[in-house]
Amino acid sequence: MPDAPDDQQYARTARTTPTRYRERADWEKAAIHAVLDSAWVCHLGFVADGAPVVLPTIFARVGDRLYVHGSTGSRPLRAAGAPGGMPVCITVTQVDGLVLTKSAFNHSVNFRSVVAHGTAEQVTDPAELAVALDALVDHAVPGRSGDVRRANPKELAATAVLRLVLDEVSAKTRDDLADDDEEDLGLPYWSGVVPVRTVYGAPVPHPGTERELPEYLRDFRAGGAAC
Amino acid sequence: MPDAPDDQQYARTARTTPTRYRERADWEKAAIHAVLDSAWVCHLGFVADGAPVVLPTIFARVGDRLYVHGSTGSRPLRAAGAPGGMPVCITVTQVDGLVLTKSAFNHSVNFRSVVAHGTAEQVTDPAELAVALDALVDHAVPGRSGDVRRANPKELAATAVLRLVLDEVSAKTRDDLADDDEEDLGLPYWSGVVPVRTVYGAPVPHPGTERELPEYLRDFRAGGAAC
Repeated sequence: MPDAPDDQQYARTARTTPTRYRERADWEKAAIHAVLDSAWVCHLGFVADGAPVVLPTIFARVGDRLYVHGSTGSRPLRAAGAPGGMPVCITVTQVDGLVLTKSAFNHSVNFRSVVAHGTAEQVTDPAELAVALDALVDHAVPGRSGDVRRANPKELAATAVLRLVLDEVSAKTRDDLADDDEEDLGLPYWSGVVPVRTVYGAPVPHPGTERELPEYLRDFRAGGAAC
Repeated sequence: MPDAPDDQQYARTARTTPTRYRERADWEKAAIHAVLDSAWVCHLGFVADGAPVVLPTIFARVGDRLYVHGSTGSRPLRAAGAPGGMPVCITVTQVDGLVLTKSAFNHSVNFRSVVAHGTAEQVTDPAELAVALDALVDHAVPGRSGDVRRANPKELAATAVLRLVLDEVSAKTRDDLADDDEEDLGLPYWSGVVPVRTVYGAPVPHPGTERELPEYLRDFRAGGAAC
């Protein structure tokens, strides 16, 4: 693969090139988008008073843009509203399995993750904000944005959305068997993979406000990926 | 609750006191430990060249200490080995449900999270390192450390473990129904909660190295919490 970015992949930089297990890294847009679209919770990192802060929050992807939801009163959102925006790291992680090997040292995890670096800015354009808010709802529950009351002016004023343009970003994946050392194979310990997956339960209607379960919630990602 | 720390709770500080939804925050040690012990993947935040970095990694808790696993060659571990350690933020998040309300604005997530701030240091004492490595294995799979080949000197030399003493830490939890505004209750949209949970599949033994499934992997956290 070339080092330069193109239509198919993001540029590689020092901080999106792992120092270890480089074969697990991927800069292909399709691979990165697939991981991002399989999740709806990210961990947002920023620096406050020189120290790191990591907070879980919901996100959505629209093309090459990540949108992160917050309140106008929250600390990261206030910082991102400042001129020049705010340096962030947005990380999305899906855990797929516990990898147990005969040695403690070779134990591992099957996972898919994306780490995106850049400067986040607050979305101020009303049209972009409307797109971002719908995307945040639909990223978790596709189709939902057409079946809710959208934000009124007062709610809009209390909602802030951060935008991070995907540019310096990579995926990392491990999807493999237990990797025992040759000399350990005869040891009397169990080795293998315990699959891990996130699943959705049957939707529980709010008491007193019941209506028929909408089409988009039937068999909702049954057995499929989740946050 | 008092503001001062005691045997039962951690001290509250400006950065462990949320600016919003303060009623969701908790500084009780028991509540914080319960969230930490229900998970084995955390997101480790640190600052590199002035910018935030957030990486997923495995962790374990031993009393008031969090241990985070890494390689001696990885960037955060090298930084933490420097005199004075490295400022970190370690965040653990469990997602329990999607909360869908009649308005887009009131949509929420049921979750449990812990955010711990402090200075991480590399574990150098061999006795503490042994305890930490066993804890890292047992935190994900209780009982596993007694059924593996423990690290040999070469492996130990390649393994680094970070210690963060729990001190400035809080939990945040939402576990509730959809919270519709009174004036929205008549709207024709579905509202309620879609439960989310992480589950383990049946362990898949490594081909050719099969042995009977050990006791600690039978009904392994069946239907229970995971990473």
